Amino acid sequence: MVNVAILGFGTVGSGVAEVLAGHESSIARKADGLIKLKYIVDVRDFPDSPFQDCFVKDFAIVENDPDVDIVVETIGGVGVALEFTRRALEAGKSVVTSNKELVATHGYELNLLAKEKGVCYLFEASVGGGIPIIRPLSQCLAANEILEIHGILNGTTNYILTRMVRAGLPFDTALREAQKRGYAERDPSADVDGHDACRKICILADIAFGRHVSPEQVPTEGIRSVTLADMNYAEGAGKKIRLLGRAIRLDDGRVCAYVAPHLIDQSDPLAGVEDVFNAISVRGDAIGDVMFYGRGAGKLPTASAVVADVMDVARNLGHRKALLWEEGGPDTVGGAEEIRSRWYVRAASGADALKNAVGGKLLAGRGTGGEAALITDAAMTRGELDKKLSGVEALSVIRVLN
Amino acid sequence: MVNVAILGFGTVGSGVAEVLAGHESSIARKADGLIKLKYIVDVRDFPDSPFQDCFVKDFAIVENDPDVDIVVETIGGVGVALEFTRRALEAGKSVVTSNKELVATHGYELNLLAKEKGVCYLFEASVGGGIPIIRPLSQCLAANEILEIHGILNGTTNYILTRMVRAGLPFDTALREAQKRGYAERDPSADVDGHDACRKICILADIAFGRHVSPEQVPTEGIRSVTLADMNYAEGAGKKIRLLGRAIRLDDGRVCAYVAPHLIDQSDPLAGVEDVFNAISVRGDAIGDVMFYGRGAGKLPTASAVVADVMDVARNLGHRKALLWEEGGPDTVGGAEEIRSRWYVRAASGADALKNAVGGKLLAGRGTGGEAALITDAAMTRGELDKKLSGVEALSVIRVLN
Repeated sequence: MVNVAILGFGTVGSGVAEVLAGHESSIARKADGLIKLKYIVDVRDFPDSPFQDCFVKDFAIVENDPDVDIVVETIGGVGVALEFTRRALEAGKSVVTSNKELVATHGYELNLLAKEKGVCYLFEASVGGGIPIIRPLSQCLAANEILEIHGILNGTTNYILTRMVRAGLPFDTALREAQKRGYAERDPSADVDGHDACRKICILADIAFGRHVSPEQVPTEGIRSVTLADMNYAEGAGKKIRLLGRAIRLDDGRVCAYVAPHLIDQSDPLAGVEDVFNAISVRGDAIGDVMFYGRGAGKLPTASAVVADVMDVARNLGHRKALLWEEGGPDTVGGAEEIRSRWYVRAASGADALKNAVGGKLLAGRGTGGEAALITDAAMTRGELDKKLSGVEALSVIRVLN
Repeated sequence: MVNVAILGFGTVGSGVAEVLAGHESSIARKADGLIKLKYIVDVRDFPDSPFQDCFVKDFAIVENDPDVDIVVETIGGVGVALEFTRRALEAGKSVVTSNKELVATHGYELNLLAKEKGVCYLFEASVGGGIPIIRPLSQCLAANEILEIHGILNGTTNYILTRMVRAGLPFDTALREAQKRGYAERDPSADVDGHDACRKICILADIAFGRHVSPEQVPTEGIRSVTLADMNYAEGAGKKIRLLGRAIRLDDGRVCAYVAPHLIDQSDPLAGVEDVFNAISVRGDAIGDVMFYGRGAGKLPTASAVVADVMDVARNLGHRKALLWEEGGPDTVGGAEEIRSRWYVRAASGADALKNAVGGKLLAGRGTGGEAALITDAAMTRGELDKKLSGVEALSVIRVLN
């Protein structure tokens, strides 16, 4: 029998307890033994919870109980979650988490610590909710040199973009709708400003390219500046606007990662990804392009990914190898400003001025006044584009994916 | 160091040798040690191959060499491949394969034998080529009760269907084009009659539902009867025709599996899967729907999945647990005839006769003469539909997915 403690009884933590309880027999069969929920650590009281016997308020009880094999960290953030994760690993317990912020910022050192202690630190649920991506990337695609990963990594922004284009809502209205439906927080910044997607592309880059990429090394742009006018022009050009996290192996060996809205072609499988769904596209030298699609968040999808990690640890107790990557640094990460692509530009300076400045095909659309938009013919860096745009009153500049 | 022997130096076998040689250092890093290709067993001579030192003609050399840890079986079929797989497992060697026919028909017994001998039998490459699906299904989604799997499992038929609708080619012409491009065999029956998709849905059902499903238990229909007229009617209704393998957990606990063409909605992520690409959709009780997409065949994609399995065995030598499922039987598999759905029907009897017989919405399209087509309003079994159609001269009957 393997004993589990859950830290934090919020949405994901309570989902983990539910999935463990609801699938007890099938989990035991697949994990070659019973997995028992022994503790739930939370400072709050939950008098109506069916897991009454499990609640404790003091993490030290878990830390000091040699019968606890696996700690599930669903606290979130990098404060107490980091402290408890370190202490759990130090105490020789494997840790499973859905905490993308902690993995993105401290995953490198926590993995090293886990290896040192002969235990595991697993985080399948930290990217894409329940969508299998960490294990496929690290195991199934292990024989590939990964060339690029990009994806729709944040369901909230994808919902907002979908509602804007489908219902003709401006950004603010679509955001309020997302908040009402529980898809966006009252302070929506982590989602709409791209920070959540940034953490996730860091984790994917760590695994795919084998060296640590820190969120502060990743230029991050959200969707606040995307307008209905941009969406109309994009539609007219057979394209959709999606917020992508993107990580690329550069020819010089560096890893380049960034988060920004992109125009993508209707024929791209990512274009059909709507509402709160996520999708991640991976390009390997042998496999070509593969894509993973599903619900990127939500209580039960995320919890099911956490429990799958718990089962993996339980099944291979003492044997499972850590997911390791190397330290990063300023020399190994960067180069987003060198990535060339075609660009969508909307400008107030009139069609001729815009076309003469950057060259490209003007788009049909509902611009007002002297407004015009185009997609450049030539691929260029953002710096090269900005030089050409020096005399143009640009209103929107969005990268076109390949 | 781990020593590997490849059985069969055809497309996939030679790809495995290439991937192992081309990624030697990164594979060694990820697998925690060198993986060395020691033997290639093939009765043919390959005087120009760079792997000259490895060739042997007698499998007994591999079988009797205690230094060989992993045998890669890329012979195909169920004759000598079955014999060599059994002998390799008996000799205490793990076996990795891309042989879907062998896994679909003998996977249950070969897995049992592997478990008995404390070794592995892995087959990620047997479904979806390089697309990660076996490991995600068995590990990442392990905390889910799987409710249904369906997918585009055969690239050749998907290429033919795509060419028919895009270029307006009749089936025979599109098939000849696929043969010219090397996507279809000279005898195309395994692909176009659905047998290949049948083997793959059997393997997926084994893993998802935990009991063996045999190809002969799976009603299988290919795409020979799909006409351009059907495609035109489908397009007019906002749908596409795709050959799907489908496996469902019935309420009574039985597993139902079948292969047949389906009309699917344009908004379904599978509708965008064109040419030789494959995609597999999995529905779990916690995760909801997830989809895996990529190249379902080809030398390097398939070889990269084989090598990933080899790395997994090498990394966890002596520790990796087998993928087990239970024996099947006539009582545990079946019920395809009980699955209700809406149906597309094209008939020569005229619009009124067809509509009066089955009820539904007539479709616009280029039928000739008195021909008409509709999609039924009501979901029903094929038996119920056939009763209603007794007085109607039906030309095509195709299931509509949900």
